[in-house]
Formats: sequence, C-alpha cells, structure tokens
Amino acid sequence: MSDMDLKLTDRPLGVFDSGVGGLTVTRAIRELLPNEDVIYLGDTARLPYGSKSPDIIRRFALEDTQYLISKGVKAIVVACNTATAHALEVLQETYRLPIVGVLEPGVQATLANGSSKRVGVIGTNGTIQSQAYQAALKRLRPELEIYAVATPLLVPFIEENWLDHEGLKLVLQTYLKPLQKAQIDTLVLGCTHYPLLKSVLTEILGEEVRLIDSASCCADAVATVLKDQDLLALNSREATIQIHFTDLSQQAQTLASHLMCREKIVFKKAVL
Amino acid sequence: MSDMDLKLTDRPLGVFDSGVGGLTVTRAIRELLPNEDVIYLGDTARLPYGSKSPDIIRRFALEDTQYLISKGVKAIVVACNTATAHALEVLQETYRLPIVGVLEPGVQATLANGSSKRVGVIGTNGTIQSQAYQAALKRLRPELEIYAVATPLLVPFIEENWLDHEGLKLVLQTYLKPLQKAQIDTLVLGCTHYPLLKSVLTEILGEEVRLIDSASCCADAVATVLKDQDLLALNSREATIQIHFTDLSQQAQTLASHLMCREKIVFKKAVL
Repeated sequence: MSDMDLKLTDRPLGVFDSGVGGLTVTRAIRELLPNEDVIYLGDTARLPYGSKSPDIIRRFALEDTQYLISKGVKAIVVACNTATAHALEVLQETYRLPIVGVLEPGVQATLANGSSKRVGVIGTNGTIQSQAYQAALKRLRPELEIYAVATPLLVPFIEENWLDHEGLKLVLQTYLKPLQKAQIDTLVLGCTHYPLLKSVLTEILGEEVRLIDSASCCADAVATVLKDQDLLALNSREATIQIHFTDLSQQAQTLASHLMCREKIVFKKAVL
Repeated sequence: MSDMDLKLTDRPLGVFDSGVGGLTVTRAIRELLPNEDVIYLGDTARLPYGSKSPDIIRRFALEDTQYLISKGVKAIVVACNTATAHALEVLQETYRLPIVGVLEPGVQATLANGSSKRVGVIGTNGTIQSQAYQAALKRLRPELEIYAVATPLLVPFIEENWLDHEGLKLVLQTYLKPLQKAQIDTLVLGCTHYPLLKSVLTEILGEEVRLIDSASCCADAVATVLKDQDLLALNSREATIQIHFTDLSQQAQTLASHLMCREKIVFKKAVL
C-alpha cells in the first residue's frame, strides 16, 4: 500500500444536507463506522430544499459537493432525499470520488423483504414529485403497488419539536388516510427527518406496517462502498466530527448537538 | 418639473420578500395606488427568512435591494417582517432612495387606537426574537402590556393551503393560549402571510380582539412616502406588475397568481 492510499483512507467522509436532518444519517454512520472522521455540511442559509425546483437543487447540490471536496473528503454522502432525487446523477457524472445517495439504499431495503406488496412513500414535495422512489421501486419490482404522498408539514413540526402535539396527529391522519385505505404493508420514510416520527407513525399505522428508515439504510450503503473501494479509515485514534453550517445560528447548533446525542462537535461557518 | 423628475415618477416601485407572502402587501399597494408599476422580487430559492439568523438576513436583504435598484426602481418596500426587523436600518443607511418597511406602519396602526392596553404579537422566530415590534411599541407607549409569541408553523400550513384543517386550529390554540390568558385586546399579525388567517384567528379569539394587518398598514405608509416625496406616478396608462423569483417554480407562479387575484402578471427568473 502506497503513502497515497494511506492518506486517502485517513481523509474525512463528507456528508451534506439542506439543514440538520442529515445528521440522522451521520449518527447512523458514526455508530457503524466509529473510526471515520466526518465533515458535515448543512446549507442552513438556503434550507429547505424539499419545496424548491430541480434546477435550483442541482445548483445547490453541486455547490455543496464542491465545498466538501475543497475540504479534502474521500467520499460524499448526499444525506438529503430531495438532493438525491434531483442531483445524485449529475454529481456522479461530474466528480470522480464515490458519492452515495440516501434513496437507493431505502429502495433496496424495501425490496429485501420479498413479502412487500403495497408500499407507501412519504417525503417532501420535491422528493415525491421527482418520482424517484416510485420509479426505482417499479423498475426493480414492477408488480409492487406504490402509494406516494407529499407530506410538507412534517419537517416544520419536527423543527418546532412538537412530536407529541395533537395537531401533528391530525395532520398525519390526513396525510396517511390514502395509505391506510390502500392497506400498505411497508412505509418508506423518504426524508432524513422522519425517523424522529417513528413512534407516532406506528401508533397510527399499527405495528404490522414495516417502516423503512432511509437514514440507517444509507449508513449501511456507505460502509459497503468504503469497504469495496478500500477507503475505510485504518487509524485507531478517536475520530472527529466537524459540522459546517452556511447559517451558523445558535438554534442550529443546539439542535445538531441534540441530534448527535451531545457528542463533542466542532462547528464552523461555511461560505459556499 | 424637469424631465428627470418625470422619469423618476414613472419608474416602478420595488417590493421584496423571501417568497410569496409579500404579495399581500403588493395587492394592498395595487388597490391603493393603481397607477404604480411594481417589480416584485421573491427570494424563493433561499426562503424562508423567518428561521435564519440576523447576519444572513441582512446579507440577503442587501442583495435583494441591490437587485431591485439595478432594475431602476424609485423606492423599495421591504414586504417581509423578518427582513424589516433585522435589515431596514442597514438598508436605509446604505441606499439613498426611499425604503419603507412593514413593521413601523403596523406599530403606528396599533397605537392609533388609544384604547389598546394589552397587545399580542405573532410572527416568525426571527421577527419575535429580534424584539423589533416589542421595542417599538414599548418605546412609543411604555405602559402597554406586550405578549409576543413565535408561531413558526403557521406559514407552512398557509403554504399547504390547509386553512380549514383541524390541525391548524389545534396549533393556533397552543400558540394563542398565553395571549388569551393575558386577555389581549389587539393582535399584531407580524408576518405578511398571516392576513390569510384572519377568519380562523377571529373564530378563536373572538370579534372583540382587534387584528392589525401589517400588509394593509404598509400600503398606506407607501402611499404617504410617495406623495410626500413627489414620487407618485403621473401616467394614466395601465400599470404593470412583474414578479421575479430566484426559484421560478410552477408552484410559486400558481400561488402568486392566486394571491394577486389572477391579475395579469409577467414572471421572470431573478439571478442575484
């Protein structure tokens, strides 16, 4: 193994999202790959991505990726469903380093259970309108019945930290009604914020509906890619996590510390 | 009157907001000043402003204003409470043309009724945390009791167009509870989206609580400034409205046409 290879493996992983939601992916990566340094970029100045159009999201995703590459990362994780849906292809065509999205791993996890017949997908307007989940699931298993619903009010409730509010339950009942009527057996959580809603979703849908958490599926995919490409960190020192925000507000730092279970984090302001 | 003056009066008014909310101000201006051409800038690529920090909002507001000045406007209306709260002062210090914010007119309208004793203010996190309304009201009438509540979930409900949803009512009941307990007699709608909630607010608070609509108050202030500075349009031709969006999505155009009562509008993509 040459010095060049050694240096590459020691480089940090780059992870980006529009805000703090992608930290659910980062946390899953940290649990699975505790030796990996991570530089996380949250584009908090321009969030959210979920309501914006494909052209704008592609431009933002290219800028986010360019920023992380300039920091010397060895691979990129697109920890945002909307950015993955609109921009993963152009990112992979543009850059040579490995780039993992959050969408394909969730699709694979859905299909891994051969008994899924009626699959619901929830996500932002951008993710659902892109048809990315629907097309990938249909392509790989044409007989699946797929029911997709855009659920744009969920992130605002999560960011208000009103996870037990009766208003959230009423909102979810409206969003989930067509999925319940269709008797889905599996629900893909197509937004990296949504793992925080698992318990209220199960309360409404019942234990028998399987929830696919795209955050933890993505972490598994990252581990596989790093292993396959001989990019796993070889050091045994304590790994570091840096969080770079384009709007470095106190609120974002507090929420990030909370999502990362108060792990020691270095915060920085990012200028794209 | 010289040609130069004539040319200045014929120039359009510039109005900006983070998204479509400022169109409630634009509509009020159109009703009051039907001869004025308007160029409206909605920074839809970077919306919302209400959850972001003062530094970022000042930078965005300076860029928005610079863009409108480059289009030849004769005056600027900051049709966004958060941008007014954080950036009006720096804009007025930076540029020579008249710049009207959305906040002072609402404060004046609140105080115009001498019988107001207990005033509630609702707005985004940014507007409420800035203390701009609270400080202005207190400065002008120190004996007022002021109760301010950040209500970040309201704009998402409005943008989902769920104005009659029971979930919205539960959310409003939680937000308004401390204001009801304090027996407010006046409520300042400190966000240009909120006029759309007038009927549900009255349903919860009762007819006796006066609602201050910062959008229509702002239009009155714009008319006064243009008149005082001899800037009123002298033409009698049909005025035009251009809407420039940094993210020119179909959704934004549809919502804008709806908010402007299907008036004929020219849409353009803005690059800041």
